[in-house]
Amino acid sequence: MTTTVAGFHGITGNVGVKDGVPDAALVYATGATTSAAVFTRSRFAGPSVRLSREAETRALRAVVVVSGNANVATGERGLADARELQEWAARTAGCRPEQVLVASTGVIGVPYPMARVRPGLAALPAADRVDLDAVARAIMTTDTRPKVAVRQVGEARIVGIAKGVGMIEPDMATLLSFVCTDADVPAEDLDRIFRAVVERTYNAVSIDTDTSTSDTAAIVASGLAGTVDLEAFEDVLRDLCTDLVKMIASDGEGASRVIEVRVSGARDDAQAKLVGKAVVNSPLVKTAVHGADPNWGRVAMAIGKCATETDVHEEDVRIAFGGIETYPVLPSAAVRAELETYLRRDEVVIEVDLGIAGGEFTVYGCDLTEGYIRINADYTT
Amino acid sequence: MTTTVAGFHGITGNVGVKDGVPDAALVYATGATTSAAVFTRSRFAGPSVRLSREAETRALRAVVVVSGNANVATGERGLADARELQEWAARTAGCRPEQVLVASTGVIGVPYPMARVRPGLAALPAADRVDLDAVARAIMTTDTRPKVAVRQVGEARIVGIAKGVGMIEPDMATLLSFVCTDADVPAEDLDRIFRAVVERTYNAVSIDTDTSTSDTAAIVASGLAGTVDLEAFEDVLRDLCTDLVKMIASDGEGASRVIEVRVSGARDDAQAKLVGKAVVNSPLVKTAVHGADPNWGRVAMAIGKCATETDVHEEDVRIAFGGIETYPVLPSAAVRAELETYLRRDEVVIEVDLGIAGGEFTVYGCDLTEGYIRINADYTT
Repeated sequence: MTTTVAGFHGITGNVGVKDGVPDAALVYATGATTSAAVFTRSRFAGPSVRLSREAETRALRAVVVVSGNANVATGERGLADARELQEWAARTAGCRPEQVLVASTGVIGVPYPMARVRPGLAALPAADRVDLDAVARAIMTTDTRPKVAVRQVGEARIVGIAKGVGMIEPDMATLLSFVCTDADVPAEDLDRIFRAVVERTYNAVSIDTDTSTSDTAAIVASGLAGTVDLEAFEDVLRDLCTDLVKMIASDGEGASRVIEVRVSGARDDAQAKLVGKAVVNSPLVKTAVHGADPNWGRVAMAIGKCATETDVHEEDVRIAFGGIETYPVLPSAAVRAELETYLRRDEVVIEVDLGIAGGEFTVYGCDLTEGYIRINADYTT
Repeated sequence: MTTTVAGFHGITGNVGVKDGVPDAALVYATGATTSAAVFTRSRFAGPSVRLSREAETRALRAVVVVSGNANVATGERGLADARELQEWAARTAGCRPEQVLVASTGVIGVPYPMARVRPGLAALPAADRVDLDAVARAIMTTDTRPKVAVRQVGEARIVGIAKGVGMIEPDMATLLSFVCTDADVPAEDLDRIFRAVVERTYNAVSIDTDTSTSDTAAIVASGLAGTVDLEAFEDVLRDLCTDLVKMIASDGEGASRVIEVRVSGARDDAQAKLVGKAVVNSPLVKTAVHGADPNWGRVAMAIGKCATETDVHEEDVRIAFGGIETYPVLPSAAVRAELETYLRRDEVVIEVDLGIAGGEFTVYGCDLTEGYIRINADYTT
């Protein structure tokens, strides 16, 4: 599977943030583009996000990423370091700094080791046609595998990459996700389509309820493959991003299973999302799924804790797992056994119908395991 | 330490819900009382909570508790079973059913085993002066120790008990907490005082963000010790309930440390509580504390994820651990070492000042460990 896109060049390599492995990536368009980008709403967004917000997000030419250090809560020094990175990327990509998106991911509160980063950047190989798979590898932190998805729409290709396994409940985007396409899509349409897709994909995934300070998602279109049908483009882009979101959930820190919660029958989509997030984020639901424990009562508890939703009445609610009904008809011993078998799958679907109206939303997450604790009890030291 | 209170009798014993160990308790006043009670806001509140809400909560005579089965999401049968329990308690206590609070805790979605419970209740010993310590033991589920606190105010005694180690982010009360006093406090004052105390104690603790379907907290005053100074009574009651809340946090499922987050400088107390909860509930903060990892950047992340709080600006925020400052002045190597030592304590205090105005709130929680996963991955089976 090739992961190149016409009109995009780049470099990956090590610049001294991590030990030996790739920790920096630059992807840039060789000509004019349209683009769209969304960012974290964190009140502690770092200088990378701040510079990126001020960039020309409708016509980006380049994205530069450092992994292993988020450069967040690092004050004036952090801002100066981020600017230096942006300027290096602009020189290398042959564009203005304002056309460069800067992204950074890793530990918070520690400045970049610029004494190593500066010579590291200078020593990177020359830029060339870029394989986005290599970029996906270079931007990993505690990810165990790169996350890449490829689609075709008409004559155009779309290649998307993402990273992120912890501190994941994006409010605008996943930790980092970049999509390159050679489709020719007007900037306004691209922005509208991307935001609609992000709402149903990146904004629908939660690994641990913790919203990153560095969430950034962007799509850049080189236009070299010509125009496409915009509805088809949106459908294919949503499909591609859903793939990436499931990859993020399945590689969630310590995760052994993906949990998909499909809420229907809600007052509106927003209520469905609220209830879905309550279920997928419940540590008791997550640990029950981990243990393949048919404790559907915890799903009832998680729905119940949405106390603001006074139009939710337990007598109207239906709960099922992969089509196996558990409430209101309490499961027999045979149904419980069937449920235990179902819960041992890699992907568990929990279906909740609120019985109010037609609102629906699907959210994605993962189980909570000892692995999550081990990974996170000792990350900086 | 005696844990009896003048005017209160009771019984504890096994009625066949758990194997052999005590699983039922009745406490009742031998005469008239004043009282106050608060309940979960869960949309899946069970029949126990529903009957209790309809009870005469300003003049309760008795509290009956079953542990090991929450009797939640059990339909009409569950409601009939709860009524039967309430009627038994009224007969035993010599009062009307409407004067009895019913509480139940344990697995959700499974009816009581009434074929064992009925003869079990009939075989309990005769009621007598009650030791609330025995009641605290009888109402435990996955608790590893009973939670009892005793205070004196003027001539009056206050004895409080609580249980709960998981599914704990009470919205009105902790899972179950009962306070008996022989002070003579008018019902209206008792209600006002109890609600104010609950807001700063039970509503300030979170173990795992999961709100129980069965949260119930009540205070019953027999009046036998006469009147007390109401301000002193409120102070002492808050102190007693803070003790119980810290016991709950330290016995949180799998917990090895209590985390106390003191937020000051907020726009108002509600904002301080919101930010405090974001910090104390962050799985990344909880695991960092578990690993004694001085990763204060995760506290910054957790503050940052309160995206609605647009008056929070990172340049005004201060973060410290037990007086050791970590932000905005980044910690030196020596300070990091000091912090690592501090984080190995049983109780870790995180101080956040938002630098806005005078709002403050303190919340309580615990670290997140492999033990939580082990306990919860296999609870019903």
